Amino acid sequence: MSGSTIGKLFKVTTWGESHGAAVGAVIDGCPVGLSLNEADIQKFLDRRKPGQNEFTTLRNEDDKVQILSGVFDGVTTGTPISLLVYNKDHHSADYSNIANCYRPGHADYTYDEKYGFRDYRGGGRSSGRETIGRVAAGAIAIKILEQLGISFCAYTRSIGEHVIDYDNFDKTEIYKNDLYMPDKTCAEICSAYLKDIISDSDSIGSSVECIISGMPTGVGEPVFDKLDALLAKAVMSIGAVKAVEIGDGVSVTTKRGSDNNDNFIINNDKVEKETNHSGGILGGISDGSDIILRASFKPTPSIYKEQKTITNNKEETTLSIKGRHDPIIAPRAVVVVESMCAITILDLILQNATSTVDKIKKIYS
Amino acid sequence: MSGSTIGKLFKVTTWGESHGAAVGAVIDGCPVGLSLNEADIQKFLDRRKPGQNEFTTLRNEDDKVQILSGVFDGVTTGTPISLLVYNKDHHSADYSNIANCYRPGHADYTYDEKYGFRDYRGGGRSSGRETIGRVAAGAIAIKILEQLGISFCAYTRSIGEHVIDYDNFDKTEIYKNDLYMPDKTCAEICSAYLKDIISDSDSIGSSVECIISGMPTGVGEPVFDKLDALLAKAVMSIGAVKAVEIGDGVSVTTKRGSDNNDNFIINNDKVEKETNHSGGILGGISDGSDIILRASFKPTPSIYKEQKTITNNKEETTLSIKGRHDPIIAPRAVVVVESMCAITILDLILQNATSTVDKIKKIYS
Amino acid sequence: MSGSTIGKLFKVTTWGESHGAAVGAVIDGCPVGLSLNEADIQKFLDRRKPGQNEFTTLRNEDDKVQILSGVFDGVTTGTPISLLVYNKDHHSADYSNIANCYRPGHADYTYDEKYGFRDYRGGGRSSGRETIGRVAAGAIAIKILEQLGISFCAYTRSIGEHVIDYDNFDKTEIYKNDLYMPDKTCAEICSAYLKDIISDSDSIGSSVECIISGMPTGVGEPVFDKLDALLAKAVMSIGAVKAVEIGDGVSVTTKRGSDNNDNFIINNDKVEKETNHSGGILGGISDGSDIILRASFKPTPSIYKEQKTITNNKEETTLSIKGRHDPIIAPRAVVVVESMCAITILDLILQNATSTVDKIKKIYS
Amino acid sequence: MSGSTIGKLFKVTTWGESHGAAVGAVIDGCPVGLSLNEADIQKFLDRRKPGQNEFTTLRNEDDKVQILSGVFDGVTTGTPISLLVYNKDHHSADYSNIANCYRPGHADYTYDEKYGFRDYRGGGRSSGRETIGRVAAGAIAIKILEQLGISFCAYTRSIGEHVIDYDNFDKTEIYKNDLYMPDKTCAEICSAYLKDIISDSDSIGSSVECIISGMPTGVGEPVFDKLDALLAKAVMSIGAVKAVEIGDGVSVTTKRGSDNNDNFIINNDKVEKETNHSGGILGGISDGSDIILRASFKPTPSIYKEQKTITNNKEETTLSIKGRHDPIIAPRAVVVVESMCAITILDLILQNATSTVDKIKKIYS
Repeated sequence: MSGSTIGKLFKVTTWGESHGAAVGAVIDGCPVGLSLNEADIQKFLDRRKPGQNEFTTLRNEDDKVQILSGVFDGVTTGTPISLLVYNKDHHSADYSNIANCYRPGHADYTYDEKYGFRDYRGGGRSSGRETIGRVAAGAIAIKILEQLGISFCAYTRSIGEHVIDYDNFDKTEIYKNDLYMPDKTCAEICSAYLKDIISDSDSIGSSVECIISGMPTGVGEPVFDKLDALLAKAVMSIGAVKAVEIGDGVSVTTKRGSDNNDNFIINNDKVEKETNHSGGILGGISDGSDIILRASFKPTPSIYKEQKTITNNKEETTLSIKGRHDPIIAPRAVVVVESMCAITILDLILQNATSTVDKIKKIYS
Repeated sequence: MSGSTIGKLFKVTTWGESHGAAVGAVIDGCPVGLSLNEADIQKFLDRRKPGQNEFTTLRNEDDKVQILSGVFDGVTTGTPISLLVYNKDHHSADYSNIANCYRPGHADYTYDEKYGFRDYRGGGRSSGRETIGRVAAGAIAIKILEQLGISFCAYTRSIGEHVIDYDNFDKTEIYKNDLYMPDKTCAEICSAYLKDIISDSDSIGSSVECIISGMPTGVGEPVFDKLDALLAKAVMSIGAVKAVEIGDGVSVTTKRGSDNNDNFIINNDKVEKETNHSGGILGGISDGSDIILRASFKPTPSIYKEQKTITNNKEETTLSIKGRHDPIIAPRAVVVVESMCAITILDLILQNATSTVDKIKKIYS
Repeated sequence: MSGSTIGKLFKVTTWGESHGAAVGAVIDGCPVGLSLNEADIQKFLDRRKPGQNEFTTLRNEDDKVQILSGVFDGVTTGTPISLLVYNKDHHSADYSNIANCYRPGHADYTYDEKYGFRDYRGGGRSSGRETIGRVAAGAIAIKILEQLGISFCAYTRSIGEHVIDYDNFDKTEIYKNDLYMPDKTCAEICSAYLKDIISDSDSIGSSVECIISGMPTGVGEPVFDKLDALLAKAVMSIGAVKAVEIGDGVSVTTKRGSDNNDNFIINNDKVEKETNHSGGILGGISDGSDIILRASFKPTPSIYKEQKTITNNKEETTLSIKGRHDPIIAPRAVVVVESMCAITILDLILQNATSTVDKIKKIYS
Repeated sequence: MSGSTIGKLFKVTTWGESHGAAVGAVIDGCPVGLSLNEADIQKFLDRRKPGQNEFTTLRNEDDKVQILSGVFDGVTTGTPISLLVYNKDHHSADYSNIANCYRPGHADYTYDEKYGFRDYRGGGRSSGRETIGRVAAGAIAIKILEQLGISFCAYTRSIGEHVIDYDNFDKTEIYKNDLYMPDKTCAEICSAYLKDIISDSDSIGSSVECIISGMPTGVGEPVFDKLDALLAKAVMSIGAVKAVEIGDGVSVTTKRGSDNNDNFIINNDKVEKETNHSGGILGGISDGSDIILRASFKPTPSIYKEQKTITNNKEETTLSIKGRHDPIIAPRAVVVVESMCAITILDLILQNATSTVDKIKKIYS
């Protein structure tokens, strides 16, 4: 019953419900000496903020983060960093119909079954607002990883059948369109497509891809805490994710070994692989090439369309969910995927720092 | 550097290298009062044993398990269960060429980078033999879960482009063919197909599916230890897995909410879902319907075909891997996937047992 | 670097510095269905509040706790409970001399050595204010344990050479005197004695005892997570504790087996022990009799008397610590010891709930 | 129910019962590149071996350790180290009377209460033989710590009322007498004293002290994983320990702050303390001076003298325990205390290695 903490050395605990007083996170194990202020975190939170364009919920939140501990004179001190975002817009809604029935595709039923009781206001803990704590922690992890030369590039890869064209890939485009797509043309097509979906009172599936560059080799702990295993856990723990793929992912099932193996070569005196089907991970350990991860998001379960469901008295009923919902999950989830990858990788980088007697001697000499 | 343990309450630690003296596992936290003997475990180990048919390596191992602790008078005592399998066939091979070069698609390079050193005999810890400990622990977990009415059905779902036809699905067929496929026709096609692959000195990708029936509702711990998140970790930690899907998996990315949501209905006074796109998990918590999980396995990286690679002195070379290798991974991995799912589910079932004050009072009254 | 979390199932994370914006705790894994409001917690916090009598620091804090999550309609929901207390009186002090030198008996030097940097204001994280989070969490644990019939009685056992007379033991007296002593006469003697200590610009050692009644048998996990081992950890983690004793403690070193063994007898058809030298724990598992634990507190290191010390530039200097300090630690630490015991016991009670197959079946039937 | 693992990065799991097939340990997280063979471990195991002199049980065991994994070409590989010792002398005894009654001072009753069932042969898991795994793991930890300049000196400090005279302290004497005392005269007195105890069919309490020299500063993780807190847990988890003291321990309760504070001075340009009342730990973090820890052991509960007790049918009876028992616990426990301290310190040293951004950059540059 205590699953709100992730990480072994860089330990992130999130707390807070959609319609409670606040949401937040405590980060324990952040290395000392990192320059950190609210703005460093805010810019990440702003990427997941609601109400920023026509494809996101209208919920009125400014999501201003406060650092309550762990930072002194603008620098991390090694003590837990407590981050808090007050929920502004949590009194407005009328939840009378949701309180008594189970929305299809949501966690209403399972929470009630697990606990016999639930905070029915806006999904409670299973709300997307829980990801605020993840993103705040991710912002800190990313800032540390940048100092080690590691960088993250996450984006919406597909919306419905519309997949980005890698020949049009433009990293700078990601932050220019509302859909966080690195392909301007695809973003425009999807924008029109989404308007149709909305007008049809429906929602649509999507996917997010994350590429991590500058990885040192050797990160990941055999056999259960492999880099890919922990990335899979971290990303699958995001609401609505139904699949996690590393490198070539599902497509490896139809490939031959001679095609799928990445040959090692020497290029400018450095070890490289001719291809990167493995997505930067071999035997659960980073091989120095880009890490490539994909997450498949189901369509937003909240739709206007009338659906069949049951009440918590176990009677059949129908339900049409009012209010404005995001018709797709991917765009606002891009920064969440990025954050979960960063939290995972930093934790494993810290663990790997003591892998050999020589490394330990280096620190303590 | 300590990633060989999985689980919080049902805690499994595996140990042992492919060509060391033995491999084994310690299971700590097994509930007391389970009737258990070597045969209970052996029947699971026999499903992954090498050399049983023309599609598996010829390594000569009988893989007889010994229980060294934790069982008294045929019943578990609550103390750690230590399981051991001696490696019989670990002196024969000649590893001189593998010792000095990095096999493409294997963990040779990453282990050397991580540790500056590796046990090069047969893959060491990254060998498939490490899964013996997983399967032995899984056998125990499954035996406990059976008493709660939970059952597992895992099988090879696809080999290359050949996917089972669900209309031909026959559970009893799984153990009748060498490929552990529930579709006799597909198994025959794949059998012929694999001979071609072998004669072509190559290997091919494959997938495994696992269906878990009889799940109680309420299992899984929000937010990071969700049932799907921990299943993803457990299954992705198996060597060669490149994707984990829950329910409809990757295909949700192109689906509409109105199609993907599973409507709740009442059937014979019981809550059911009309469909099971969610794969039995909502909000990271079991919803009582079947859990459906799929793992994508890359083609066996060891192939006869000559490949380009480098030596550990960073010089380019070519390599053709001798000996008999499995041309596909799925069949022998079926029981491993099943085991990892069982270990994960039992651990979460134990955690869920104390989710409410009422449950705790029930135990302590 | 992540040591701010304690517990496996009932998981408590504290955060906050003495002179930061706030201090707090996140409790993850609190069972669902506990009636809980701020007042339940406040009454425990008030027991450790400063400035309540002549023997405590004058720091002006009202220490009002806020519940930010995890409680809905006055009942715990199973999600993390976030508790926060703002620091009111954190701007007043002048820390210029402490900033640059190491107070003897304090953690100034070790923090600087560990991190190369520290929050020098009032001890930062090593301040007694950190215990607010512990006590807030303890209040919740105690409220749950009460429902299982478990009760706590903690008090100041000794101040300097003055030890309570167990013949005068009066539980109701504990909350009547400023020193939380269960012996009125001893409290009066100590009160006069402390005035002498204060007028001598000095401080004095003390001890706290905690008796836990109504324990079920069987609590505690062999071999490293024994009940006494985890109690020792929890209590030794309180600042200034230099010894933890269970039952007869240090005095067992001079006793004979025939005196120290507690004989089992049958009394009114129930198993009892004739004596309780073991302090309620045998083999690390509760035996059903009262748990008895003692903590030895060193004298408050902050004293007015001039002391020799060094600056952080490694130059010798002298230091006289201004301001009003508690001359003894025990009275305000009584509730902290009680809280740490409660947190530990609840966590082990949850773990023990799944110790047998039969118990698990009972929950899932 | 899974308390057989200790440590976060250097993770030790012990398994095995007194009269099962074998006992052992798995060490996960041992840094790579440590030269290690069976003899390194055997010399530590030999210090706790039974039957070596007139004061220990006659159980006939040679306790030969086997390394089954984790070492290749005489060097640790970073994979789990599996250690095994077969129980030779486990068939001989007749346990019929112990099986049905509860020995006072033993864990028979509490195991039965916890599990409803127990392995009654020789104490099962609560036997002293369980410490074989601890000592084997400790031997490895000590070998690594030696390379960082950290050394351990543990010994019997007292037997009954007879305490060593520190003026006679001779480190080389420890291994010369059967009682592991650093004071020859005291050892001789105790030797005669113990013969009296034995002839009186009784046992006597004792204490062990451990001094750890060469500690780097900065080791220990605030606030719950303080160095002293984790040492207390580790040592209190040893059977028969009833108190753990750090530095001046219980005696601080009667001391004044001006006496108990250790003043900092500069000696030869290095920071030192004039005294070491703190026992080398301030705020839970090592201060660079010697760590001093004391453990109080109760008298051996197994005595020849007839004792009152009950059967497992809850009927009163009497019991006289046959066979040869150690009349004191300390001598054979010296190496166990040393081992538990080493395991704890190594784990915290690994954690501390990543405490600052600068240290992490040093590793990854």
